[in-house]
Amino acid sequence: MAAWWEEIVAAVSTSGPGGSSGTVVSICVFTAVLCLCLVAGHLLEENKWVNESITALIIGCIVGAFIFLLSKGRNSHILRFDEQLFFIYVLPPIIFNAGFQVKKKQFFHNFLTIMSFGVVGVFISVAIVSAGCHWLFPKVGFGKLDAVDYLALGTIFSSTDTVCTLQVISQDETPRLYSLVFGEGVVNDATSVVLFNAIKNLDINRLKRGVVLKVIADFLYLFATSTILGATIGLATAYVLKALYFGRHSTDREVALMALMAYLSYMLAELLSLSGILTVFFCGIVMSHYAWHNVTESSRITTRHIFATLSFIAETFIFLYVGMDALDIDKWKTSQASFKTSIGIFGIIISLVLLGRAAFVFPLSILSNFMSGNSEKAPITFKHQVVIWWAGLMRGAVSIALAYNQFTFSGVTLDPVHAAVITTTIVVVFFTTLVFGFLTRPLISAMLPQQRHREGTGGHITSSNSPKDEFILPFLSDENAPGSESGINQAKRSISMLLERPVHMVHIHWRKFDDKFMRPIFGGPLSY
Amino acid sequence: MAAWWEEIVAAVSTSGPGGSSGTVVSICVFTAVLCLCLVAGHLLEENKWVNESITALIIGCIVGAFIFLLSKGRNSHILRFDEQLFFIYVLPPIIFNAGFQVKKKQFFHNFLTIMSFGVVGVFISVAIVSAGCHWLFPKVGFGKLDAVDYLALGTIFSSTDTVCTLQVISQDETPRLYSLVFGEGVVNDATSVVLFNAIKNLDINRLKRGVVLKVIADFLYLFATSTILGATIGLATAYVLKALYFGRHSTDREVALMALMAYLSYMLAELLSLSGILTVFFCGIVMSHYAWHNVTESSRITTRHIFATLSFIAETFIFLYVGMDALDIDKWKTSQASFKTSIGIFGIIISLVLLGRAAFVFPLSILSNFMSGNSEKAPITFKHQVVIWWAGLMRGAVSIALAYNQFTFSGVTLDPVHAAVITTTIVVVFFTTLVFGFLTRPLISAMLPQQRHREGTGGHITSSNSPKDEFILPFLSDENAPGSESGINQAKRSISMLLERPVHMVHIHWRKFDDKFMRPIFGGPLSY
Repeated sequence: MAAWWEEIVAAVSTSGPGGSSGTVVSICVFTAVLCLCLVAGHLLEENKWVNESITALIIGCIVGAFIFLLSKGRNSHILRFDEQLFFIYVLPPIIFNAGFQVKKKQFFHNFLTIMSFGVVGVFISVAIVSAGCHWLFPKVGFGKLDAVDYLALGTIFSSTDTVCTLQVISQDETPRLYSLVFGEGVVNDATSVVLFNAIKNLDINRLKRGVVLKVIADFLYLFATSTILGATIGLATAYVLKALYFGRHSTDREVALMALMAYLSYMLAELLSLSGILTVFFCGIVMSHYAWHNVTESSRITTRHIFATLSFIAETFIFLYVGMDALDIDKWKTSQASFKTSIGIFGIIISLVLLGRAAFVFPLSILSNFMSGNSEKAPITFKHQVVIWWAGLMRGAVSIALAYNQFTFSGVTLDPVHAAVITTTIVVVFFTTLVFGFLTRPLISAMLPQQRHREGTGGHITSSNSPKDEFILPFLSDENAPGSESGINQAKRSISMLLERPVHMVHIHWRKFDDKFMRPIFGGPLSY
Repeated sequence: MAAWWEEIVAAVSTSGPGGSSGTVVSICVFTAVLCLCLVAGHLLEENKWVNESITALIIGCIVGAFIFLLSKGRNSHILRFDEQLFFIYVLPPIIFNAGFQVKKKQFFHNFLTIMSFGVVGVFISVAIVSAGCHWLFPKVGFGKLDAVDYLALGTIFSSTDTVCTLQVISQDETPRLYSLVFGEGVVNDATSVVLFNAIKNLDINRLKRGVVLKVIADFLYLFATSTILGATIGLATAYVLKALYFGRHSTDREVALMALMAYLSYMLAELLSLSGILTVFFCGIVMSHYAWHNVTESSRITTRHIFATLSFIAETFIFLYVGMDALDIDKWKTSQASFKTSIGIFGIIISLVLLGRAAFVFPLSILSNFMSGNSEKAPITFKHQVVIWWAGLMRGAVSIALAYNQFTFSGVTLDPVHAAVITTTIVVVFFTTLVFGFLTRPLISAMLPQQRHREGTGGHITSSNSPKDEFILPFLSDENAPGSESGINQAKRSISMLLERPVHMVHIHWRKFDDKFMRPIFGGPLSY
């Protein structure tokens, strides 16, 4: 007994990558604690206040405290935070699964609104948080950051974590709301990471004029190329699976091919300096639309569950890690900010987060309602707007990863200002996840009291979340909604028609094209 | 285009762990080549000569050659061989899957024979190979190795790779043969690794007397404790899944818990300095016997396929890696052995491998036949003995990993003798996998011509390889086989009875115990 205990203590005391025994200990502890989180999360499933993220955070904290005591105050974690680990291994399964499981019908139906939230919204939020920090930080005696650092801060605190809210909103009862929150979450992640990279590469001193335009142009280019790459790899997978008929021999090979190709799409995008997140997201969408239909029944069940499982483990891992990292004494020591300054920074950031999000959710929702006019879509009610606003208040793993990327070197920083930013980020993630997270269920119960009726567009939403649903339903319906409108409504309707009609036509033509050319080549049943 | 191409070239040229871009490139290339292997393996499935391992080896070689040209002769691989990577990430899924998918009925029915092949056989083979190398190496002018090195060489070349043969033998047509080859393969892996570690820790100078006894005692201790640990973790998982009824909420959580607990068993065994391989193997057996019955139908399908897929990817990865590593020019340069000496060493090892295996397969088979006497088991025919002998001639990833572990430091060696051992190991793995591998299908076709009748014990073997089969069948059957025996046969039968009866009784009592106490607590249907 003594031997392995000493090994653990030794591994804990040395920290860092360490030798072989250190790795074994880290993996052991992490796996054991992950199992614990699984069981605890399961037992607390019905609980009104906590959720998966909170459980993992708290367990991580407790384990961190144990390690802290065990190492006699030297450190609290057994793995250094490694953004590479995060961006190469942990993030891809989460995003791929999001694309693979997304209800494509709802997603594309609300495409414009989701994009306005996920892209325009992030730009607005970044502007507000950056400007706010730049203006307010000196007032609490904390102001030695570059312009790029402020922009990075804006991006870091504009990336949201919607997992918490998605666990509470019912996809069946409020499909449109669910789709908006979910879609925004994914697009927001991608936008934050892409924008962050664009800002990091920005030479703020040389290029004064046209900076914003350049960032936007870069962003659009990245968005387009990443999407095309993801779709191409997804289609290639579908074609190979269909043409070679893998199921004839082996289900395992089908599953392996899908998983490997998905991962390849992410890594290839990173290699080509594109956005891996967007690529793997669209690869997931295309795979569930085509490739998924070309495999055996066993493979369909396996892929659906395995991607969800991997994503689930990855998410738990992140929160666990953040929990363990919170007690990392080195950073707290390095940060020389006084308690008053720390509280000041924290208060400023929380206020800016609340404000920055309100500044785009409500205006953009109203705009979206106005554009939709009296068309077939139900408007986004004020209560839904509050839920959307709330859903994006939590800050999560992406914030942490971006902060480490910008303000540390391999997880270590010796600069007190940077250390203060890191510790503040950790505190903000903790606070938003714990406090806002605790309030999510009660808030949503108050906002959305047991809506047993179906809202949104189709009305045919089934309770199964199988990708199969996608093609059973017509892509758009109720297009000839009867209306007896007032003058203003008619005017609004005309404006909305101008915008909606092309989208609608794109949908219809796409369906026809899909049925005529894509489905026969890449697989899957016809929709008409 | 130029940018990423330069990145690849740069990553290839620097080799080693490298920076972030190097990792991205390595992962990209590996993932892409793995996909290629999958497709190629699928297309060659019906081919009479090649198999998965050979395809991966050859593709690895070709990619290695490309990298070699690209880096202008500097190196041929983009990842250093890392035994840690192998033992921590690649081996566990393979062994766990073996335990999870093994036909427990056949495995335990042939338990004594499998153990005699997998344990006694390895000891015999190690003795012959070690002694042979010690005697013959100086005769080809190569003799600067320690006694421990010779013993390590014996272990390295006694670990077999039966994947190749298992792809050819039909589990339905010759269940006993399949079970023997499969069981021996797993036990052999475990024995080799355990024995290797025992030998590495041996202080050959201090401890002259009782060394063999000490090694055997260590081995038995490790075997017993590892098995108990694996079974305990498997039972704990089954109990948690049953008691908490995870399926109520989430299939993903069930799958995640099973996978994580399996991995935990391996890492925990490593942490406690036990045999991770044995632990995770028995954990797999116990999980498929109990835990698998406590989860939802989707989880059953998912787990069955996902473990097989992971194992499949891991195996392909290994052969791909070995293929790429074969052209690593550094090792060939470091090894200063002349061409004649190299050929000599290679010839000696191949001969010893052939001899060492023959020295236990045939005698132990005859012993097993004699012991079984006229009992219910069909004897191991001479043709089957040849197949068993042949099945274990291939050397694979375990040999490579052990050789790197003993003769290099993190994949690098500057000692010419050690480099020569490494290159010889690579050549032996190549030769046995390619040449013996190519001959496997034809040989087995000659030895086992289309046996459409069922052989072996139960006679009820179904073609499905679902773990479900296990409990449909009675554990032992035909126990009252009618016999009209000669005197000698009666004597043989009496001897065999002395040995078989206790095993048989253990089985029956175990089944009763299982039904009465284990099944109600840990889950799964009753057998009677």
